[in-house]
Amino acid sequence: MKTAVLAVTLLGALTGVAQAQSTVQVYGSLDSGVIKRSGQSLSVGKRQANTLGLRGAEELGAGLRALFHLEIRYESDTGLLEYGGNGLQRPFLQGQSRVGLAGDFGTLRLGRGLTSFQEISMAFEPFHGIPSPSGFQSDMMVGGGYSSDPLGLPGNSATRFSNALFYSSPEFLGMQLNLTIGSREANGNAALVGRGSPLAPQYPANAQASANPFSIASTYKNGPIALMLAHERNAVEHEVTAIAAYLWISPETKLMASLSRQDQSHTRLAGQHTRAWVMGANHTLGARKFLMGYGQTHTDSLARVKQLSLGLEYSLSKRTFIYADLSNKKGAPALAPGAASSINHYSLGVHHAF
Amino acid sequence: MKTAVLAVTLLGALTGVAQAQSTVQVYGSLDSGVIKRSGQSLSVGKRQANTLGLRGAEELGAGLRALFHLEIRYESDTGLLEYGGNGLQRPFLQGQSRVGLAGDFGTLRLGRGLTSFQEISMAFEPFHGIPSPSGFQSDMMVGGGYSSDPLGLPGNSATRFSNALFYSSPEFLGMQLNLTIGSREANGNAALVGRGSPLAPQYPANAQASANPFSIASTYKNGPIALMLAHERNAVEHEVTAIAAYLWISPETKLMASLSRQDQSHTRLAGQHTRAWVMGANHTLGARKFLMGYGQTHTDSLARVKQLSLGLEYSLSKRTFIYADLSNKKGAPALAPGAASSINHYSLGVHHAF
Amino acid sequence: MKTAVLAVTLLGALTGVAQAQSTVQVYGSLDSGVIKRSGQSLSVGKRQANTLGLRGAEELGAGLRALFHLEIRYESDTGLLEYGGNGLQRPFLQGQSRVGLAGDFGTLRLGRGLTSFQEISMAFEPFHGIPSPSGFQSDMMVGGGYSSDPLGLPGNSATRFSNALFYSSPEFLGMQLNLTIGSREANGNAALVGRGSPLAPQYPANAQASANPFSIASTYKNGPIALMLAHERNAVEHEVTAIAAYLWISPETKLMASLSRQDQSHTRLAGQHTRAWVMGANHTLGARKFLMGYGQTHTDSLARVKQLSLGLEYSLSKRTFIYADLSNKKGAPALAPGAASSINHYSLGVHHAF
Repeated sequence: MKTAVLAVTLLGALTGVAQAQSTVQVYGSLDSGVIKRSGQSLSVGKRQANTLGLRGAEELGAGLRALFHLEIRYESDTGLLEYGGNGLQRPFLQGQSRVGLAGDFGTLRLGRGLTSFQEISMAFEPFHGIPSPSGFQSDMMVGGGYSSDPLGLPGNSATRFSNALFYSSPEFLGMQLNLTIGSREANGNAALVGRGSPLAPQYPANAQASANPFSIASTYKNGPIALMLAHERNAVEHEVTAIAAYLWISPETKLMASLSRQDQSHTRLAGQHTRAWVMGANHTLGARKFLMGYGQTHTDSLARVKQLSLGLEYSLSKRTFIYADLSNKKGAPALAPGAASSINHYSLGVHHAF
Repeated sequence: MKTAVLAVTLLGALTGVAQAQSTVQVYGSLDSGVIKRSGQSLSVGKRQANTLGLRGAEELGAGLRALFHLEIRYESDTGLLEYGGNGLQRPFLQGQSRVGLAGDFGTLRLGRGLTSFQEISMAFEPFHGIPSPSGFQSDMMVGGGYSSDPLGLPGNSATRFSNALFYSSPEFLGMQLNLTIGSREANGNAALVGRGSPLAPQYPANAQASANPFSIASTYKNGPIALMLAHERNAVEHEVTAIAAYLWISPETKLMASLSRQDQSHTRLAGQHTRAWVMGANHTLGARKFLMGYGQTHTDSLARVKQLSLGLEYSLSKRTFIYADLSNKKGAPALAPGAASSINHYSLGVHHAF
Repeated sequence: MKTAVLAVTLLGALTGVAQAQSTVQVYGSLDSGVIKRSGQSLSVGKRQANTLGLRGAEELGAGLRALFHLEIRYESDTGLLEYGGNGLQRPFLQGQSRVGLAGDFGTLRLGRGLTSFQEISMAFEPFHGIPSPSGFQSDMMVGGGYSSDPLGLPGNSATRFSNALFYSSPEFLGMQLNLTIGSREANGNAALVGRGSPLAPQYPANAQASANPFSIASTYKNGPIALMLAHERNAVEHEVTAIAAYLWISPETKLMASLSRQDQSHTRLAGQHTRAWVMGANHTLGARKFLMGYGQTHTDSLARVKQLSLGLEYSLSKRTFIYADLSNKKGAPALAPGAASSINHYSLGVHHAF
């Protein structure tokens, strides 16, 4: 993920121009591969979200820094801005758009980005935080259709808050606190029927949140061990509580596990509670990295959803690797009547960071 | 607004590559804050438009330069491309997209950007050219719903011409002339009923301009004093005439005022004429900058719209400041039946330029 | 087209940071001019597509390189993302989005971009590969409404494959092979009635390709001579076969010609076969470059479409030129009932590459 540093500092130094030290970086990644899924023809697509971003930091003196991130997401196979699973285009800066200040007090930012829970939990996921079908983030580490942004614009991702304040504390004795609080303002959502009726939905179109959404993730790190405890409440008062841990048993091998509970009773009469767990391991052998994960989500009386994923990444450089994944998912809600309840997914591709 | 200079010139110099001198700059700004308005819950939003741009200039020899600007606008709180007040997304390069030549004859550019009047008048506005609710640009320095681009795509901004030629003369004895002329070509507008009827609108959907839109702004600068005289006619033959002045009474203190008249009789039977005036002051005290403004717009027999704004900017560096504004607006056309006719607006945020 | 090289390599060298050599380039072009067409008012527009891109390459050792291209297209006169002829917005990265590896085996990339035929044939077109009205690419070098991407999203360009693998061989004895193969996956197309009926279209909305689309272009270069032989089959099994040649008769003068046949019988009952040919010349005289072209397309019993184009480019630098074109097109399917069958097109503008 290291990127093109625009030579601002350097230029300043060589030309003797006095100015606040500054770097603006253009960064991003491009992932493209061939994919074969049960019952579908061979396709070209991504394994990991494609990003194109700008980030910068400015030293303000006295330990204070201004910083920002602007991050576009796009589809490398069609050239479109990123699309959601429902076929709707996501925001231009789907990745994030945040600006703020960092100092002794920690980091305080405003804008849109991953919630504290969704961002921190990626370190406890065995496919470096990518979602299904290869990884487990966002739909297996939680379950039951939980979304961090249920009142977002149709098409929005399920892991971010818009209109939010993001705070990360400094680390203290290995402990850190991360907190996201969203405003209640309306964002052009589609109606959410919930416990209402189609004529009187619980959350009408363009509704305000019924309470301020928030997300807390606290971590503890000590040598090869890390723990996370997280709690999040979204704009329609669904709640997630999660615990996760990882352990480096050797410099090459990382084990990890997470467990979460969702309570969606605020808008549901059935399928209110979901439990989800994921276990995984990463093992590095020279240029090869093996990734393994298994997880289940279980919503009340519904069938368990089970996913097993195996991956291999072969590094051509620090910024480029080729990969091969195989994954099986059972019991996921069928996308079409009569669709198989067990789907195999194979992918082979290249990932390049710039 | 000084930005990351890509080290093209430098690279050329160091590597000895012979090439035309060139700089491409990535620049932009990110503004995010918390906002409280009468009758609304606390929200996260911007005070000033967020920009992300590329600009470049190439020395062509003999005093001639090629130059271009491409400028994206986005919403930092939601990651979307900039939205208009009507909830419609604006063009990708909402800021501007212009290319042209500069030399002894002045600067000649083609494309889309602020009209000469809208661009030049920003220097006479006490909140450095931002619109309501904090500032006065575009909806208080003019009034009566005047738009520079009434036949633009729905959602387009009200201060720009598309398909236009932009000319700025060199300065001569302190005087400068700025001129924008738009083509008459259609741009996918929605129907404008005007003096017609819904069945036979005066300007149907995707109509051509009935005359070439143009905008002239002439300025005179002499030491601490500047004057502007401007006239603009849009694509549906509405006209604005404006006069403005500023005066630096000390190196820390700038006073400014503007006065404008709009004639929208070409499409209106009532509310044809509007007068608008704004007075303001800026005062700098170390890292603090105080901004004050008051203005009124008056359209025929309608209630006067009055706005008072007070702002404080505290610079953390040349490129980063925090701000606090309070503003009151009275008499604006109610957004909803029964809405208060006096609205207070408070905002507190951070602005970062890169 | 040489562009801003972000000073990554340089920074690494000066600061002694060990990292894989890398360059990320921001590049693009901006073209804007005034246009007069028969029966239309003067307009502002482009002659050549406007681009804004990022490209990079990373040396991986052992002769292997990772490379990528991300290329936005936009309209300089309105600031919009590029629009198709049907008034629909094209993908964000309309230009291309490709990533892959290059080495002794050639270049292998995945993503979206010009098909091998469309990309290679540009060198045999007298207006450096731009389409009508000035140039001949894409609608005169082929004809009969042939599109490389008939099952793309409405608005997509007619010269690209999405979801494709792109291979270019190394040059061997002056010969090179270029190959593009697309997946059969659906891309959200509108229904294509074809040999079906409106109720049972041959290709329904969001249909899969009936066979894998592919495009082959082989070239032979020997001193001042080049030949191209190409064959392409699109997602609805239309086929193009093309042959083209160019010859530099002096270092200032290039002659070129192309001939193609389209077979669209897989979806058509009439207008199945089209022949198209284009001849042209370029001549450079100091800073002036003259461009001339003439071509015809003939679809079965329909009237022949004939186009003559003359252009003059005057270079102000390697990256900036001004241009004047005049073009006449006869026999093109009328855009409106009663529209003239012979249309003159005049344009005068500036082109700047960065």
